[in-house]
Amino acid sequence: MKAVVYDGALRLEPNHPEPRVTPAEAVIAVRLAGLCNTDLEIARGYMNFRGVLGHEFVGEVLEAEDPGWVGARVVGEINCGCGRCSWCLGGLERHCPMRTVLGILGRDGTFAERTRLPLRNLHRVPAGVSDTEAVFVEPVAACCEILEQVEVRRFDRRAVLGDGKLGLLAAQVLAADGATVTLIGKHPEKMALVATEHIQPRALPELEPRPTFDLVVECTGAAEGLRLATELVLPRGTIVLKSTTAQPPTLPASRWVVDEITVLGSRCGRFRPALDLISSGALKLAELVSARLPLRQALSAFERAEVPGVVKVLIDVHAD
Amino acid sequence: MKAVVYDGALRLEPNHPEPRVTPAEAVIAVRLAGLCNTDLEIARGYMNFRGVLGHEFVGEVLEAEDPGWVGARVVGEINCGCGRCSWCLGGLERHCPMRTVLGILGRDGTFAERTRLPLRNLHRVPAGVSDTEAVFVEPVAACCEILEQVEVRRFDRRAVLGDGKLGLLAAQVLAADGATVTLIGKHPEKMALVATEHIQPRALPELEPRPTFDLVVECTGAAEGLRLATELVLPRGTIVLKSTTAQPPTLPASRWVVDEITVLGSRCGRFRPALDLISSGALKLAELVSARLPLRQALSAFERAEVPGVVKVLIDVHAD
Repeated sequence: MKAVVYDGALRLEPNHPEPRVTPAEAVIAVRLAGLCNTDLEIARGYMNFRGVLGHEFVGEVLEAEDPGWVGARVVGEINCGCGRCSWCLGGLERHCPMRTVLGILGRDGTFAERTRLPLRNLHRVPAGVSDTEAVFVEPVAACCEILEQVEVRRFDRRAVLGDGKLGLLAAQVLAADGATVTLIGKHPEKMALVATEHIQPRALPELEPRPTFDLVVECTGAAEGLRLATELVLPRGTIVLKSTTAQPPTLPASRWVVDEITVLGSRCGRFRPALDLISSGALKLAELVSARLPLRQALSAFERAEVPGVVKVLIDVHAD
Repeated sequence: MKAVVYDGALRLEPNHPEPRVTPAEAVIAVRLAGLCNTDLEIARGYMNFRGVLGHEFVGEVLEAEDPGWVGARVVGEINCGCGRCSWCLGGLERHCPMRTVLGILGRDGTFAERTRLPLRNLHRVPAGVSDTEAVFVEPVAACCEILEQVEVRRFDRRAVLGDGKLGLLAAQVLAADGATVTLIGKHPEKMALVATEHIQPRALPELEPRPTFDLVVECTGAAEGLRLATELVLPRGTIVLKSTTAQPPTLPASRWVVDEITVLGSRCGRFRPALDLISSGALKLAELVSARLPLRQALSAFERAEVPGVVKVLIDVHAD
């Protein structure tokens, strides 16, 4: 099958070995896959990953031991735990120390005609949710994770810092309860994609960096992000940190002490709340798709995703 | 009056001007004052402070408009808010943006024969609490603040990192509910002062730095503290950060994201819970006093506080 492989260089392989069904794992025909910044980082060597890239997808179950799954349109949680440790038994497979992660850690991913995941990772996609919406479930779940970590109702002055793919989703998720969210970024044209009466864009050069918000969700993808978030957060406020950087940044930790600020690391989330939120129609998702390329043009898709102003790039596996 | 003044250099002034009573503020005769690491930092230029140093004390009210206070043995909260802003109205004077802080920010402190504080900052010391115990109220309150910020009952595996003055108090406060606390430091002789069946000292060179604790309270006073705390905390664990450092440290923030770790800055606390805890007899405090010097030897007290192995140094204002 065709697959996008990283083994020190990024290649499109025409004859990659097929995934095989196992008692616990299904083979899934990928329909649509989404490019994420993590994919771009992995293509630069992050995580030392070797194999098929990609972790955002929607597809159809081709083979499974349980025939009830065959033919189902599915999305799949990307963390595959051991199923036996205390993390897994507590429903936190995504923190299992033995985990593999789809297209990120020890497991082939979704930029391919077919992929494989444990049945327990799969979720059926409701009929009212399109493929284009469903492919956003994974990053939307990462934003919904914030709602499970923090009681956002407590925060009147919410900001999302960063107008990339994740920032545009996070602003929408944080505004879904009817609150107002300030979306802070460098690209007015990206922020305009999600602006509503509840999501108010502020361009960075015109924003004075002083304590203004009691909740700042940092989605910049850059080392400066947490420093700027620290300038923007009020005393006793909370910063939710989403960005990972290859180099450890220099950080104003003394301000966290003096002003009793909370810095909360946040990664993947459960798919169920994300699917529910997408089903409700509260999110603009199709609007975020900048380009849609066939699998045979996957390397161009990686290039396109790096172009300034581009938001989401999708790989359409069935397109020619 | 005699007073320890910093104005670019540390001096003992024999004839410093007396504080004067005001409608809102009482004049207090200081009995005992405690040296804190912040005092040592201020004597090196931290906070750009100019004036009388010192913020830990127990004393007796000499003059106050309300005669009910005169003669009372008191301790006093060190943050003096404006009394009108939303922080002050919410009981959080210690975050008032207009605040002065006793011996730290815009207000003369307690290494003097007499000092002055708003009446609303004062707390009567219960008869069963000795002066030596009462002088620890301020740093004990800073440890009790952790209990107000974090529901410590949720944490089975608690560690305190740092065996200085604050670490030895924090370990006792965190063990006061009967839980076991691992106290991690470089000085076995200091840790032995507070070791009980509930406080288990571990010397740093023999401790393998791997994720072990779900709560790590960082009290090292050093930039390495938060880095080491990050190595010691389990996924989804909490680090309470107490140390401020002059230079912003380089920090492993990506691990906070991947393992969803919370870093919580923590500073001053309310005196009432600290007084209650001290009254209960649960804390070893007199055991932490390494030296007690008269006010006229205050500069020697600063030198003594820097000697390795020394824990608490007190200034006894009434001694000759």
